[in-house]
Amino acid sequence: MGVTGYAGFELAKLLLRHPRVATPLFLSRSGEAAGGRLEGYYPEIGGTGSYPLEPFSWELLKSSGIEVLFLATPHELSRELVPEALARGLRVVDLSGAWRLKQAANRAVYGFEDQNAELAAELDRTAVYGLPELHREELREAVLVANPGCYATSVIVPLAPLVRSGLVDTARGVVCDCKSGVSGAGKKPTQKTHFVEVAGNFSAYSVFGHRHTGEILEQAGLYADELIFTPHLLPIPRGILSTIYLGLTRPVTAKEIEAVLREFYSGAQWIRIFEHGKLPQVQYSLHTNYCDVGFQLAPDNKRLIVVSCLDNLMKGAAGQALQNLNVMFGWSEREGFQ
Amino acid sequence: MGVTGYAGFELAKLLLRHPRVATPLFLSRSGEAAGGRLEGYYPEIGGTGSYPLEPFSWELLKSSGIEVLFLATPHELSRELVPEALARGLRVVDLSGAWRLKQAANRAVYGFEDQNAELAAELDRTAVYGLPELHREELREAVLVANPGCYATSVIVPLAPLVRSGLVDTARGVVCDCKSGVSGAGKKPTQKTHFVEVAGNFSAYSVFGHRHTGEILEQAGLYADELIFTPHLLPIPRGILSTIYLGLTRPVTAKEIEAVLREFYSGAQWIRIFEHGKLPQVQYSLHTNYCDVGFQLAPDNKRLIVVSCLDNLMKGAAGQALQNLNVMFGWSEREGFQ
Amino acid sequence: MGVTGYAGFELAKLLLRHPRVATPLFLSRSGEAAGGRLEGYYPEIGGTGSYPLEPFSWELLKSSGIEVLFLATPHELSRELVPEALARGLRVVDLSGAWRLKQAANRAVYGFEDQNAELAAELDRTAVYGLPELHREELREAVLVANPGCYATSVIVPLAPLVRSGLVDTARGVVCDCKSGVSGAGKKPTQKTHFVEVAGNFSAYSVFGHRHTGEILEQAGLYADELIFTPHLLPIPRGILSTIYLGLTRPVTAKEIEAVLREFYSGAQWIRIFEHGKLPQVQYSLHTNYCDVGFQLAPDNKRLIVVSCLDNLMKGAAGQALQNLNVMFGWSEREGFQ
Amino acid sequence: MGVTGYAGFELAKLLLRHPRVATPLFLSRSGEAAGGRLEGYYPEIGGTGSYPLEPFSWELLKSSGIEVLFLATPHELSRELVPEALARGLRVVDLSGAWRLKQAANRAVYGFEDQNAELAAELDRTAVYGLPELHREELREAVLVANPGCYATSVIVPLAPLVRSGLVDTARGVVCDCKSGVSGAGKKPTQKTHFVEVAGNFSAYSVFGHRHTGEILEQAGLYADELIFTPHLLPIPRGILSTIYLGLTRPVTAKEIEAVLREFYSGAQWIRIFEHGKLPQVQYSLHTNYCDVGFQLAPDNKRLIVVSCLDNLMKGAAGQALQNLNVMFGWSEREGFQ
Repeated sequence: MGVTGYAGFELAKLLLRHPRVATPLFLSRSGEAAGGRLEGYYPEIGGTGSYPLEPFSWELLKSSGIEVLFLATPHELSRELVPEALARGLRVVDLSGAWRLKQAANRAVYGFEDQNAELAAELDRTAVYGLPELHREELREAVLVANPGCYATSVIVPLAPLVRSGLVDTARGVVCDCKSGVSGAGKKPTQKTHFVEVAGNFSAYSVFGHRHTGEILEQAGLYADELIFTPHLLPIPRGILSTIYLGLTRPVTAKEIEAVLREFYSGAQWIRIFEHGKLPQVQYSLHTNYCDVGFQLAPDNKRLIVVSCLDNLMKGAAGQALQNLNVMFGWSEREGFQ
Repeated sequence: MGVTGYAGFELAKLLLRHPRVATPLFLSRSGEAAGGRLEGYYPEIGGTGSYPLEPFSWELLKSSGIEVLFLATPHELSRELVPEALARGLRVVDLSGAWRLKQAANRAVYGFEDQNAELAAELDRTAVYGLPELHREELREAVLVANPGCYATSVIVPLAPLVRSGLVDTARGVVCDCKSGVSGAGKKPTQKTHFVEVAGNFSAYSVFGHRHTGEILEQAGLYADELIFTPHLLPIPRGILSTIYLGLTRPVTAKEIEAVLREFYSGAQWIRIFEHGKLPQVQYSLHTNYCDVGFQLAPDNKRLIVVSCLDNLMKGAAGQALQNLNVMFGWSEREGFQ
Repeated sequence: MGVTGYAGFELAKLLLRHPRVATPLFLSRSGEAAGGRLEGYYPEIGGTGSYPLEPFSWELLKSSGIEVLFLATPHELSRELVPEALARGLRVVDLSGAWRLKQAANRAVYGFEDQNAELAAELDRTAVYGLPELHREELREAVLVANPGCYATSVIVPLAPLVRSGLVDTARGVVCDCKSGVSGAGKKPTQKTHFVEVAGNFSAYSVFGHRHTGEILEQAGLYADELIFTPHLLPIPRGILSTIYLGLTRPVTAKEIEAVLREFYSGAQWIRIFEHGKLPQVQYSLHTNYCDVGFQLAPDNKRLIVVSCLDNLMKGAAGQALQNLNVMFGWSEREGFQ
Repeated sequence: MGVTGYAGFELAKLLLRHPRVATPLFLSRSGEAAGGRLEGYYPEIGGTGSYPLEPFSWELLKSSGIEVLFLATPHELSRELVPEALARGLRVVDLSGAWRLKQAANRAVYGFEDQNAELAAELDRTAVYGLPELHREELREAVLVANPGCYATSVIVPLAPLVRSGLVDTARGVVCDCKSGVSGAGKKPTQKTHFVEVAGNFSAYSVFGHRHTGEILEQAGLYADELIFTPHLLPIPRGILSTIYLGLTRPVTAKEIEAVLREFYSGAQWIRIFEHGKLPQVQYSLHTNYCDVGFQLAPDNKRLIVVSCLDNLMKGAAGQALQNLNVMFGWSEREGFQ
């Protein structure tokens, strides 16, 4: 559901190619879209078929034999639909921020107004944060998967193992200077996403106030005053690069850092650890589900710069959702990717 | 008036720098803008001062001693305001399409609904098409100047002298394949101007139906079935390049073509004729008021390709308006440009 | 061979994914590359394995059991290597311009200096122009496939059926205004491909003199004075859009045009014909092997504009080469594509 | 001298417009350029005249009555030419890195091989770092002005006053995450500046090893282990944005920060301090000589993010050089700018 947005459409394309997924049902709430067809929004898929957009209804989901509901909808709507979806026995992968946060303080930024606060609180506990590399076991049986934010994924992937290793002097402060392509801002046209405002430009935004901050704190294991996370808008359609600055608790070697990362992600098929001094670029992971991680140690061996890259619509959204689907059903995590 | 749009803002900056223009009055109709300040829309000019946006009123114009009203407003509004402005003794330079067309058939595409049709028809006759290189004499005394369209300027400048020379086999058909940057589509955010839709993309639009067609026909002296004009959207903020294909009535030499162009534009300070085989590029005229013209003759000397370039916000809009101001007041045409 | 260039690398990625292709052998002549690894040039493929670059030698080809040699090399080198490759029983798909032209006059522009002119002339006759939609039958048994140029494909696909239908007034002249992304200019850095020269810019080049002209004439069935083909450089990495202007021999309906195109490409899996008035954009076919074709008829039904799009590295180079491989071996033409 | 590079050409355009500068002499060492003309490299200036490029010679400088020599040459050449230029009574503004560094340790990264080491050391002491906002008084009489690096300017302008105020906890570490457009990498085409490698991409480079580090340390007053400076390559032609992360020695208010900055730059015509929470964007200062500075204080009032922007070819190179010229001759610092 929500298939006409950028992340929803990316997911639609992935689902159509997935060998274990029968014909997906594409839902759309918006009046103009209902009764329409996906190729009306994205002519590029017209060559391979015609894809009707159905108005949302629980009956249709039931009669179609749907087992998993993907929500690429605004978080308010996800918050509203999920309780009933679970009650009806559906498993849900939610791409919005509705169910990602475990701590009420962090959830405050969203200002959720739940109809059944008790049930919502229970679901907040039940929901599994859908970063398979961190929560693979819980995801296998999860009924509600909270697909991570794009920025959050790019930061948590490198930070989680380093923080857990005890090598990071978190008290000194962790600086995450993050840069994202414009599709992360959604398909709705705004002044901020107007071509003339973005092309040839670059800017910081939501300084000290971006919604992904809570996810990063919870999943990386940091206190609020230990983290600075600054998003910037890149004049490119897709891709994220995060530059992360860390102080270390003791002088370390590059080998140690590399070992921490490689061990933690041993067997992880969608994480690529680069050797010391080779840094990933946005281009390397575009149109793939990889999160690339490289690092450079300061000459004093006490400060570390980590650079991570991913495609915000793939590992940052739709690709991650598909990977979660694979985990939920016990399939190979590469299934359905090229 | 209409200073918050791209062309209006470009004109505002030019007027502020013009040595013979006293402090301009910036008008804006929109509620949010009224009472606001220009630097709220364009922070980049904040360094040189603060510029209030005034709500439009005839009284304010009068009490401020305004002599010339520039309209960078929708054509419906220009059509509505101009009769009264002239009645009040103002001279008007209108950047919209409201008063450009002499032939009723060509005006049909705009669907004007004039309150006083007779007066409007008279003004249609009175208005001077504001391409100084074609109508310099009439512009000196003009009270209503219809500033040309951006595409139209890029096509008329090279076509007018060639068609008048009798060298063009117009019956064979004149093909104008034109490409424009995104600012030509205006500042209002739409799906079509969303960064993600434009970046890395290229497309044709308004094929056989663009509003500038009538201007080109009238000013270049062509019949409707002799012209094909096809606009395309370039993934750049500003700039136009038009590639024009002409059959010739007899074999000619490059020298002849160059002579026709140079003679026609002898003394024209904002037209640059390139020597045979050197073609202008969009970059050459960006942020200037030049219209650049180059050409390449086919080996058979019977077919000609002309390439013209200009900055759609300068010679294609605000720069041309300032040049018209200079002509209207008898100043040097370079006055106020850098 | 020639796997480090843009087209070569694109082909390498396609071959690695093709289910019927065993591990390909990647050859590279250049000293620095020989003995190197493909991921040294393109780090993005490092996640899926390590790919050695071998120095070229006939012995290595033989001992590796290679059946098909893809050449993504300069045309001089292709001209030199092909005779021996065929003598050794290899089938060759050549992505350069070395073997595309049937008429000696058209070949002149390349200035080939063949060691064995007689043999070369025979191979010129033997070579099959690798546009499967036009030469499918001959390609099945072909030993030498001349993979078409990127611009040429975008123009021939729409032109060939229309010219053959007799509806095109070729004497009136066919204008092809073509625009390509920068990867078409190759990977070697030059002033022309410097980011600062291209970004925000747009320009025409090789007017009346581009090498693809001969291919278009031969394959579309036009005389030299009937065609104008003008390439332009788009500030995008990949993609081509060609706008083609045609006069018609008699008034026709849109249905007729659509029927001509649909019939000719009936069964063609990589050609998408758009319905009248819907025009393809560059984005639609990026990263696919499609050539998209749309058209708009003039209100007088006597003039026609056709717009075609493709990805210059896919249907314009590597994708077409893979499609040719599929035809040569009797596999489905979609095999190996996603 | 060195007028064909990006910074040199920008300076040429500025000098041509400067009301107090007589016709400048454009020198070029390169064989192909010598005897050539500037419009051969940059056709866009052809409309305003023809500008010969002269081969370098001391005699020509003398006979032309040149008083100031601008060097936009490689640092090795600047290092070689300056001693003789000064001996001949010329004042020099050097845009390279040759004379910027006061500490030998910082100079090591350039590996200068001076013919007369003693003289060079003396000139290292004599040279004035050409950031007028920091060294205005010394610049008035300076004979050798070392024009700052582009990155360095964007970092030193905000850092210098804050560090001097004692509010910055430098021991905690200052992180400068800097992003620059491609013209900063020079005009010479390389793989790194190829359009296809840059467009749609973003990357970090020279991590812990960029040459501008020494300038920043010396001018901002920091020790090497207190600073991290990380350059990134933006897919835009020009412009720099630096995001600077600072810990504070005590909780402060936004007013205090703003006061420190405004006081330090009181009277500085090319520095724009933004009010708290309003951050500059790259677009705001493009094609101007401004360095824009904005900031955002953390909710805990103990951490500060500063964002600075400038045009790397203007305040980052040629504009700064012109501003230095104005200071050296006692003219208004805005003279010659629009």
